Amino acid sequence: MSTQTVTVTGMTCGHCATSVREEVGGIPGVHTVDVDLATGLVTIHSESQLDPVAVSAAVHEAGYAVAN
Amino acid sequence: MSTQTVTVTGMTCGHCATSVREEVGGIPGVHTVDVDLATGLVTIHSESQLDPVAVSAAVHEAGYAVAN
Repeated sequence: MSTQTVTVTGMTCGHCATSVREEVGGIPGVHTVDVDLATGLVTIHSESQLDPVAVSAAVHEAGYAVAN
Repeated sequence: MSTQTVTVTGMTCGHCATSVREEVGGIPGVHTVDVDLATGLVTIHSESQLDPVAVSAAVHEAGYAVAN
């Protein structure tokens, strides 16, 4: 098991969090995705370490961006 | 045809607007619902004048509130 966190910008409400949770949760090997709306922190638990590009792509797909 | 407007507070993103649009659009007799996210102004076109209580209830159902 692997845990990684990214900070996502632009999420303003619970719907935004749900969108990110769904897109990131759709990456193969991802078990759970926790979103802290106040801080933008997204914690991802997965089978193995994820490709940051895949995470970033999923966040973009949801309509948001990963902070640099 | 009747047009009425209400100001809805708490909407922060397009998902919020969609939720309000869907709930208010579900009121019998409603034809179209326009949401201006920046101002919170929701313009409702309907068959006949709507009960303000029904509009308020639909907005609450979506998770938001009508401004007094």
